[in-house]
Amino acid sequence: MCQFCDYTIHAAHHHFGWDNSIEPVARIMPGQTAEFTCIDASAGQIIRSSTVDDLMARDASKVNPVTGPVYIEGAEAGDILKVKIEQFVPSGFGWTANIPGFGLLADQFTEPALHIWNYDAEGLTPALYAPNARVPLKPFAGTMGNAPAASGRHDIIPPRRVGGNLDIKDLSAGSVLYLPVEVKGALFSVGDTHAAQGDGEVCGTAIESPMNIVLTFDLIKQSPLKMPRFTTPGPVSNHLDSKGYEVTTGVGPDLMSGARDAVAGMIDLITAEHGMSAVDAYMLCSVCGDLRVSEVVDAPNWVVSFYFPRVVFD
Amino acid sequence: MCQFCDYTIHAAHHHFGWDNSIEPVARIMPGQTAEFTCIDASAGQIIRSSTVDDLMARDASKVNPVTGPVYIEGAEAGDILKVKIEQFVPSGFGWTANIPGFGLLADQFTEPALHIWNYDAEGLTPALYAPNARVPLKPFAGTMGNAPAASGRHDIIPPRRVGGNLDIKDLSAGSVLYLPVEVKGALFSVGDTHAAQGDGEVCGTAIESPMNIVLTFDLIKQSPLKMPRFTTPGPVSNHLDSKGYEVTTGVGPDLMSGARDAVAGMIDLITAEHGMSAVDAYMLCSVCGDLRVSEVVDAPNWVVSFYFPRVVFD
Repeated sequence: MCQFCDYTIHAAHHHFGWDNSIEPVARIMPGQTAEFTCIDASAGQIIRSSTVDDLMARDASKVNPVTGPVYIEGAEAGDILKVKIEQFVPSGFGWTANIPGFGLLADQFTEPALHIWNYDAEGLTPALYAPNARVPLKPFAGTMGNAPAASGRHDIIPPRRVGGNLDIKDLSAGSVLYLPVEVKGALFSVGDTHAAQGDGEVCGTAIESPMNIVLTFDLIKQSPLKMPRFTTPGPVSNHLDSKGYEVTTGVGPDLMSGARDAVAGMIDLITAEHGMSAVDAYMLCSVCGDLRVSEVVDAPNWVVSFYFPRVVFD
Repeated sequence: MCQFCDYTIHAAHHHFGWDNSIEPVARIMPGQTAEFTCIDASAGQIIRSSTVDDLMARDASKVNPVTGPVYIEGAEAGDILKVKIEQFVPSGFGWTANIPGFGLLADQFTEPALHIWNYDAEGLTPALYAPNARVPLKPFAGTMGNAPAASGRHDIIPPRRVGGNLDIKDLSAGSVLYLPVEVKGALFSVGDTHAAQGDGEVCGTAIESPMNIVLTFDLIKQSPLKMPRFTTPGPVSNHLDSKGYEVTTGVGPDLMSGARDAVAGMIDLITAEHGMSAVDAYMLCSVCGDLRVSEVVDAPNWVVSFYFPRVVFD
């Protein structure tokens, strides 16, 4: 229970997809704080006892619900909505899946897989994935966005310039997100809370986990912003980097192919060195490995690198 | 002067481009260590007193010289060359340039620019770029590679699966690089030493700086490796992250466009907040800002983020 919040927005007020005709569930003044209760990206269909069969039997139209929208008083098209990410209240339950047809290496991983996580919601100690692998946790919200100006319902999966399913792992407690406003009131919603994810979210899912999130809103009036931006208050990788990284690369003229080669190389390395199945290594890469662009200027070949934190197997 | 080195390979033995017919300048046993003297990426044409006119008047065919090659005894095609990066001896002089036609935003920055650096070669304290901006340093070699199997001369600029101009900023002291071997003796060369660079090397140049580098070689016989990989011994961003990051994004269906949007957004932010010219901000981004792929699965839109360390303006 948030002691300093002005509003509580319950998960019962969730919606699927973006649509600026959805009625706001609260009207919030700049400077005010709200706690949002967020269900997970399966909308509660995957639970602690779920199996791969349950994953495949779920209603896939109920994907990535977001809680909201909230109307920010005074917000107009051309403003910037400033969202201070105050804190998370994690649930201790999460799931990671390989969903056929989805993910960076969907062509190589065609069979479904599901991992259920039970993690320490209070201490956030690294979460057990396999007898020899523990994943450091850093909760964040995968989806935070304003309603787009274009009318009608817009798919929730792709992110947009107004934000949405950005899946940026550093949108964690203490960060401040700046989002372009396209409609009156901004019509902000949040969901897709994750207990951990690597840059790229390579298998398509993170540690998908229901969570509460506390946000404070503010407005910057009539200021140009083409794309979302954010500020982090301090280091972003301290929970991962104490033992360094194993890094694989993809070298070639296409960044997407480079990303695929780098991740495939890491899966090969993890399976060879740690006796893990390929799909388990793929899902592990998704929750803690980072895709970086090492160079993008030495034409015609770019280097994409995949950084896997060695502390996971320490 | 390296006390524990078995060999010293002088910069006089530099070559331009890769060619497996170049005679090796030394034969080195696995387990042995060599110090390489490396001139800068302009092959000594840009010096402390150089101006933009000198930049444009240089002989551009003399680009990115590498010192070597060295022949590793016993190396054969199909082996992996293991290169332990022992230490750097920086020179204290460096340069960063915007070279017309080169760089991620070459279409937006068509005029040449040159910044000369004088940095603390012993203490590696953050280097002065502008009265309000200092860049943390971490020396590394931009180019380390083996000769390709294909005969003839190959351009030095693009990196390949045998390495080369990888421009990976974490190939710094303590890291271990693994490179596929394609020819007998491996024929390894090194150069393009940098005092600092961000992931992406977005303007096309880093802090280009002559330097000595000490390397220890080993072989892993007949082991498959598709692309270069490496291991870092510890955290890679401690010198940058104490004050957190300003982050801009590019959201859309093409990773290259996303990278361009993210970097352009950061240049806008730096010019607005710190009163720096756009080209100076661009070159600054190149030496200390990092391109990351935040998500590459939420089809059809990916998120590329550009992380700029706030400590630079602190």
